[in-house]
Amino acid sequence: MTRKKKSPRESFVSMTEMVLPNDTNTLNNLMGGRLMHWMDVVSAIAGQKHCNSTVVTASVDNISFRTPIQLGNVVTLKARATRAFNSSVEIRIDVEAEDIPKAKKVASHSAYFTFVAVDHEGRPVEIPEVVPETEEEKQLYDGALRRRQLRLILSGRMKPSEANELKSIFEGT
Amino acid sequence: MTRKKKSPRESFVSMTEMVLPNDTNTLNNLMGGRLMHWMDVVSAIAGQKHCNSTVVTASVDNISFRTPIQLGNVVTLKARATRAFNSSVEIRIDVEAEDIPKAKKVASHSAYFTFVAVDHEGRPVEIPEVVPETEEEKQLYDGALRRRQLRLILSGRMKPSEANELKSIFEGT
Amino acid sequence: MTRKKKSPRESFVSMTEMVLPNDTNTLNNLMGGRLMHWMDVVSAIAGQKHCNSTVVTASVDNISFRTPIQLGNVVTLKARATRAFNSSVEIRIDVEAEDIPKAKKVASHSAYFTFVAVDHEGRPVEIPEVVPETEEEKQLYDGALRRRQLRLILSGRMKPSEANELKSIFEGT
Amino acid sequence: MTRKKKSPRESFVSMTEMVLPNDTNTLNNLMGGRLMHWMDVVSAIAGQKHCNSTVVTASVDNISFRTPIQLGNVVTLKARATRAFNSSVEIRIDVEAEDIPKAKKVASHSAYFTFVAVDHEGRPVEIPEVVPETEEEKQLYDGALRRRQLRLILSGRMKPSEANELKSIFEGT
Amino acid sequence: MTRKKKSPRESFVSMTEMVLPNDTNTLNNLMGGRLMHWMDVVSAIAGQKHCNSTVVTASVDNISFRTPIQLGNVVTLKARATRAFNSSVEIRIDVEAEDIPKAKKVASHSAYFTFVAVDHEGRPVEIPEVVPETEEEKQLYDGALRRRQLRLILSGRMKPSEANELKSIFEGT
Amino acid sequence: MTRKKKSPRESFVSMTEMVLPNDTNTLNNLMGGRLMHWMDVVSAIAGQKHCNSTVVTASVDNISFRTPIQLGNVVTLKARATRAFNSSVEIRIDVEAEDIPKAKKVASHSAYFTFVAVDHEGRPVEIPEVVPETEEEKQLYDGALRRRQLRLILSGRMKPSEANELKSIFEGT
Repeated sequence: MTRKKKSPRESFVSMTEMVLPNDTNTLNNLMGGRLMHWMDVVSAIAGQKHCNSTVVTASVDNISFRTPIQLGNVVTLKARATRAFNSSVEIRIDVEAEDIPKAKKVASHSAYFTFVAVDHEGRPVEIPEVVPETEEEKQLYDGALRRRQLRLILSGRMKPSEANELKSIFEGT
Repeated sequence: MTRKKKSPRESFVSMTEMVLPNDTNTLNNLMGGRLMHWMDVVSAIAGQKHCNSTVVTASVDNISFRTPIQLGNVVTLKARATRAFNSSVEIRIDVEAEDIPKAKKVASHSAYFTFVAVDHEGRPVEIPEVVPETEEEKQLYDGALRRRQLRLILSGRMKPSEANELKSIFEGT
Repeated sequence: MTRKKKSPRESFVSMTEMVLPNDTNTLNNLMGGRLMHWMDVVSAIAGQKHCNSTVVTASVDNISFRTPIQLGNVVTLKARATRAFNSSVEIRIDVEAEDIPKAKKVASHSAYFTFVAVDHEGRPVEIPEVVPETEEEKQLYDGALRRRQLRLILSGRMKPSEANELKSIFEGT
Repeated sequence: MTRKKKSPRESFVSMTEMVLPNDTNTLNNLMGGRLMHWMDVVSAIAGQKHCNSTVVTASVDNISFRTPIQLGNVVTLKARATRAFNSSVEIRIDVEAEDIPKAKKVASHSAYFTFVAVDHEGRPVEIPEVVPETEEEKQLYDGALRRRQLRLILSGRMKPSEANELKSIFEGT
Repeated sequence: MTRKKKSPRESFVSMTEMVLPNDTNTLNNLMGGRLMHWMDVVSAIAGQKHCNSTVVTASVDNISFRTPIQLGNVVTLKARATRAFNSSVEIRIDVEAEDIPKAKKVASHSAYFTFVAVDHEGRPVEIPEVVPETEEEKQLYDGALRRRQLRLILSGRMKPSEANELKSIFEGT
Repeated sequence: MTRKKKSPRESFVSMTEMVLPNDTNTLNNLMGGRLMHWMDVVSAIAGQKHCNSTVVTASVDNISFRTPIQLGNVVTLKARATRAFNSSVEIRIDVEAEDIPKAKKVASHSAYFTFVAVDHEGRPVEIPEVVPETEEEKQLYDGALRRRQLRLILSGRMKPSEANELKSIFEGT
């Protein structure tokens, strides 16, 4: 039996939040933990859309926060599936923050979350493949293997010496 | 002028949370985003204690969530500084979840968050060095350099070929 | 001096929320008040985007909730400006709820919120006109006058006998 | 069998809230969506008291927000049933906001929410009639028919030409 | 100059809350801490109304929780001033919980909170006297002295041997 | 059969919170009700750890709030069992607030909460004894009897004349 196929477009989700007082620290900046909470919600929804099942967060890749997001800014989070592996799917999230009254983009981040699709008793289920369509989607699809090896190494489930995909980065180019 | 020194013990913080309904998804499991929010708060406090200044989240390293944490479980988060770099400090967080009525540990995770110490106008300030005392603290101190190179590569601020610390992992041992 | 013009497309905002336990009543249905809170946030952002200023909620039109939205459903809210009047703008919100694991649309609503654009001291400011582009946008633009008369009558600021736009509905078709 | 009767007094509920930071926008004003959430809670309780069953929000009538309510203000919401229709009941909510340290009323609004009484499986149940006692209650009772026709027209369940109650407003006075 | 006088009636506040999922523990009972939070808000408002100034919580008397309040129950809290002392005022809160669909009172509690009235810089200000009117109010007014001595002893600001009001309870009757 | 024994050390819990905007009143001070909510959570966890069962809040002793805790302060709450009585256990909570950037302790409080251990149907269950080890723990153990008599008197379940433990305070020393 062949596995179902879905494009990244089919799992696309856009979420918009306004930064309110309870989301900020004493400098009136959005707290990192609050932003990660939003990232988790939007990417879980994209994961659900791809898998058509309940999903649970399996891992989060390195996130780097460069510029502060302020009280009153509007944050737009866009998520979509990049690649599926048996019962897990990688989701890329692109975040943009704007100061709308000043018509100014104030920050942008991206992140990768991985989810496992589960049934009602929490057991992993098989999910559709991701079939990339655009050039950008193909690059994200290819990079997913490398990011996966890094995840497996960092969580102690793969030896660095076995990470062929990843090794090449440190040797050449 | 010599830089101030502090041990990881001086920044140690312990935080305990009970998983309540609004922290869970439809499977009654703690949502990953909620746990990351708690990790951010506890590590920000450890960062503040080390730096004696306001701190902002600069980055989060890969986190892998293996076993689900349930509604009603008690989650203990312990954070302390591992190493400082000019105005940034790496914090390690150890998370344990327990089902107390059943006297059973249900999950454990660890994570690394990095914070930048800032003054009232958000400008970076110099911070004390971390001086490890125990054997475990020394290992965390040594590993911090490798984790930092990985962060710099992943955020595009260092070329993989320059990451000497990290490269060695993929080549030998 | 001519007034600035903007299309509804320029103020378009999409927001996605997952219904969590603290959003529901004892039947596990999304509470109406919570949904209205989300409608207010998404339409305020669309209002901000149209006006490029802070906006405050001026009024909400009749909303009718037909089918219940359940715990775990995903709610997508889409908002955009339909017509501007001096310093106020009408925003239409379209709401769709889905049970994603069952791949089923469960409910859809629409609503109109009106916002006043204000400066930092809360005084009304002039805003761009809305210039409808598609056929649907033109119909929403035309209907806005009728909805405005109804708002003015219901808030006691216009006599029913003066509401020419609205009167026609009760007389002919 | 005759239907049970209840006065508006029997469903009366008073609720008081203090406007806290997380209830406000960047101008330190209470957000409209937060106020509607409170209106929904207080009127749902009044609906429960009238029906002695669980109730779900069926519709909200036009609400117009005239004057801003500030951080720290105290908001009092009073709700009571005005009229019942088979399994639905209309609730009127009167809202007053005060700046207590300055001993000054700062705003007042009113609104109408409609609820449907349901059993444990969400099926509509029959509810008591509302029997108005005071002069004001009688006026609210009479007006309820007109408001109901408007609701039915606005939700597309009645043709404007059939709304005899409502039509008269636009023709004479 | 004579001090202003106010009756308990003038500070009376009624607040109603519905117990939602995020207010409950794993037995679906209202958490004690959540109820105390509501008690604090309602009594702070009563304190504000009596003092016409900002007030801060100074102390809470013993509270005993006898019967559990369930998810979906409606909780009514009524607060009013019982007696004033220079810049502090004692507030009595009466709490009642109902299961409205079953038309059944499920619990009732009372509690005493004390507040200090302060100006914008947090310095205590003089407040009006409480002048009890009904028989019940007079008893609460008389008992306030005894409760105050107990508070002073328990917080180490009065020696038990000086608490004449209180001593009599342990010796006679 | 002999009852199980546990030291206060075995139920010790430490919790740390940062005061955020939604925890404060209009003077930017932590609200008393929010602090009591945190006290309830930390002491419920200590109670669970002592009893290895679900616990429900039975009573709260007098709490006196002396110095304000500010926005941005870090609050550390430490809880442990002091003495057990059949199915109830007294928990002492020590609270300290710090302004970390200023390296200054800003406030300290202590409080006693009592919990009843219950099974899944809410019926009281027998719990282990508390066996104090340190000198301080022994004093807390001894004082628990006196505090219990006060609780019973204040909740009307003991006559003052029967409170032998407590009476002695008012007569001698």
